[in-house]
Amino acid sequence: MKAEIIAVGSELLSPDRLDTNSLFLTEKLNEAGFRVHLKTIVGDRKEDIARVVAAALERSDLIMIIGGLGPTDDDLTRPAVAGVLGRRLRTDPDVVAVIRMRFAARGVVMPRINERQAQVIDGAQVLSNPFGTAPAMWIEEKGVKIALLPGPPRELQAIYLQSVQPRVEACAEGKRLTRRSLHVVGMTESEVDSLAAPVYRRYRNVETTILASSAQIFLHLNEWVSRGEEPAQAIELASRLEQVLGDAVYSTSGESLEAVVGAMLRGSGRSLSVAESCTAGMLAARITRVPGSSDYFLGGVLCYSNIVKRELCGVPAALLDSHGAVSAEVAEALAGGVRRACKSSLGLSITGVAGPGGGTVEKPVGLVYIGLADERMSWSDRRVIPGDRESVRERAATYALAHLRRYLLDESRGAPGTRAEDPRATLPETPQ
Amino acid sequence: MKAEIIAVGSELLSPDRLDTNSLFLTEKLNEAGFRVHLKTIVGDRKEDIARVVAAALERSDLIMIIGGLGPTDDDLTRPAVAGVLGRRLRTDPDVVAVIRMRFAARGVVMPRINERQAQVIDGAQVLSNPFGTAPAMWIEEKGVKIALLPGPPRELQAIYLQSVQPRVEACAEGKRLTRRSLHVVGMTESEVDSLAAPVYRRYRNVETTILASSAQIFLHLNEWVSRGEEPAQAIELASRLEQVLGDAVYSTSGESLEAVVGAMLRGSGRSLSVAESCTAGMLAARITRVPGSSDYFLGGVLCYSNIVKRELCGVPAALLDSHGAVSAEVAEALAGGVRRACKSSLGLSITGVAGPGGGTVEKPVGLVYIGLADERMSWSDRRVIPGDRESVRERAATYALAHLRRYLLDESRGAPGTRAEDPRATLPETPQ
Repeated sequence: MKAEIIAVGSELLSPDRLDTNSLFLTEKLNEAGFRVHLKTIVGDRKEDIARVVAAALERSDLIMIIGGLGPTDDDLTRPAVAGVLGRRLRTDPDVVAVIRMRFAARGVVMPRINERQAQVIDGAQVLSNPFGTAPAMWIEEKGVKIALLPGPPRELQAIYLQSVQPRVEACAEGKRLTRRSLHVVGMTESEVDSLAAPVYRRYRNVETTILASSAQIFLHLNEWVSRGEEPAQAIELASRLEQVLGDAVYSTSGESLEAVVGAMLRGSGRSLSVAESCTAGMLAARITRVPGSSDYFLGGVLCYSNIVKRELCGVPAALLDSHGAVSAEVAEALAGGVRRACKSSLGLSITGVAGPGGGTVEKPVGLVYIGLADERMSWSDRRVIPGDRESVRERAATYALAHLRRYLLDESRGAPGTRAEDPRATLPETPQ
Repeated sequence: MKAEIIAVGSELLSPDRLDTNSLFLTEKLNEAGFRVHLKTIVGDRKEDIARVVAAALERSDLIMIIGGLGPTDDDLTRPAVAGVLGRRLRTDPDVVAVIRMRFAARGVVMPRINERQAQVIDGAQVLSNPFGTAPAMWIEEKGVKIALLPGPPRELQAIYLQSVQPRVEACAEGKRLTRRSLHVVGMTESEVDSLAAPVYRRYRNVETTILASSAQIFLHLNEWVSRGEEPAQAIELASRLEQVLGDAVYSTSGESLEAVVGAMLRGSGRSLSVAESCTAGMLAARITRVPGSSDYFLGGVLCYSNIVKRELCGVPAALLDSHGAVSAEVAEALAGGVRRACKSSLGLSITGVAGPGGGTVEKPVGLVYIGLADERMSWSDRRVIPGDRESVRERAATYALAHLRRYLLDESRGAPGTRAEDPRATLPETPQ
């Protein structure tokens, strides 16, 4: 069945704002069995809203109209929709009472203007708003279902889950969209696609999309299945893709890379500290996005300047002088140094040239070294990352997490310290 | 004049992706004098695209169609638009040659399928694509101008700036949109609005919008003015708003808070280090987003665990025991400790309960202390921040920057160490 989403508000036609409510609604509508076939963003003009709604009535089974339910002159969704449907707007005394109570609870007398929010389209079901004054509405017109929802995401989501979802479910027919995802790290988008495309192209009933973000690749497998059925094709495809992509797949259940690495650390009983130069906290911020990360993450050093590399990570001045701050040697010394300073089992470090300035022929913008140290050895990984300052930094943090994941994977397979790539023997431990 | 934007692509109707190209295009079109009155997102179905384009021809002076120009079966913008206009598609041998060369440069023979990208609508001007194989097109039909642009943002932006912008400028008439912005910190959105609304409501020719993000408030003042004219009303309004909002306004030229604070540090000749507990790097990541921040930012400590607070910031164990890690005392000790450890002029710290767990009645989730230390004293600021883990952390970083800005402002006014709020005498400096 076909749904369409209409977002109302001139601010959504400015260069400052996007309609993000439609992502939430699309996910929920897909799950219920509706395909979103069109989204429209229209300004606060009654005739524009009316024209879009009239067109939607001709082509969709379900219409979600977001916004324009506030109390001011700019809020025109109610009269526009009433006009298209040829129905009257009337002030609902029960709704007025609810709005008045909401103001009274804050010790404020309801401004006269808010009475406008109690205007209800004839025949509409009023859906109460637990977080705001604008109630939502559910209307049925010649077999088409229409929901009017307020724009603030918290209000929209609460009303959807409480009142709209059951109504949507009740009128949904046919298949529902089910989703499977594979998250990949350590390969480029085109590497993933060249391995995955020959596989997923054979699954015509599964819609496969590949998205890349911060050096991670996300494969989404969508399949429409009948109620109560398993997405058999998507499950089979996911398993084939896992075979061809190998352990570059770090999650099949939507977990973030930092959550996966965190669970591995917790499982191994090891603790972690980090030393970040060019990323200056972006790696630690990601690690600690995971609630409970204090179980394995102790902290670390923001070694942005050489003075901090020396003072807090114990990197010898001579090493900085001879190899430069951006080098495999310093990356490993930082990893070992932060490990000792924070008394953690593992130390992970990033040092690089994020740009835009500071690049040279030997050490160009985008050059990054990841360092890793345990109680016995240290390793490093060299990357040259394309893009601007922020994407170099974001990807460097991803590579550091991927490097740590690789170490923990190898270790769990009983091959600690015997990795094929770059098994560089470490610098001797400098006592601190 | 009226423009509308049509984004083509079924992936933009999934729960995973938003059309973000329209923000870039809206800004550019507004500057040129076009108001974007409608945005539509349509899937990869020829009849759907055709229907939307046909409707657009009836109501807009300029139509920007994004995406659907790739080489596969799903890429249907060319035939759909040709169909609506009643024009033929023909393969342009010059375009084929360009695409073939682009493949050859990568040492690859052009796949047959890519010839489809050389299909040109009769009468269209072909606009070359410096970054991809899909050329863009510019079409004029009964006074309406139509641009077909590829979806990848880098390609779209390059083609727009190089080939579309001059054509848009040439057909633009009437007024252009000019923008002024005020960035505010240290007030809530409703505090800002209650002061600002009585002022901006009197300026009917200026469209004022207020956005809040991470404890910062952004006021955008848009005014349509004739070519060559200054936006006199917006300029006057901006200056009145600055008067009522006072020095809560940190920028009137679009600079970020971290850039403003960075410039103040550079101007004062002082260096900074940070100690971050619950934010674990988010503050430092923001400070170092500013290129050149190494001039004043030395680094710091990710004092996520108490062991790191003690070992690297020299916070006495007794202080942690008696006051707890989330306390004014520890915030100030962290600020002083990181300052000494990194040998910076100023130390800035954050310690708090980000949640979702870890809250108590005395120290609820969202409780955050900001600490600041200079060579003579230390201060702290207590906040209880609503929201989820990530928003508590993001806002805490903003409050820390705001706290530092306030210190630097007071100092530049010759009132160092004599701030009205919380002039708490510091703990004695613990030698380290």
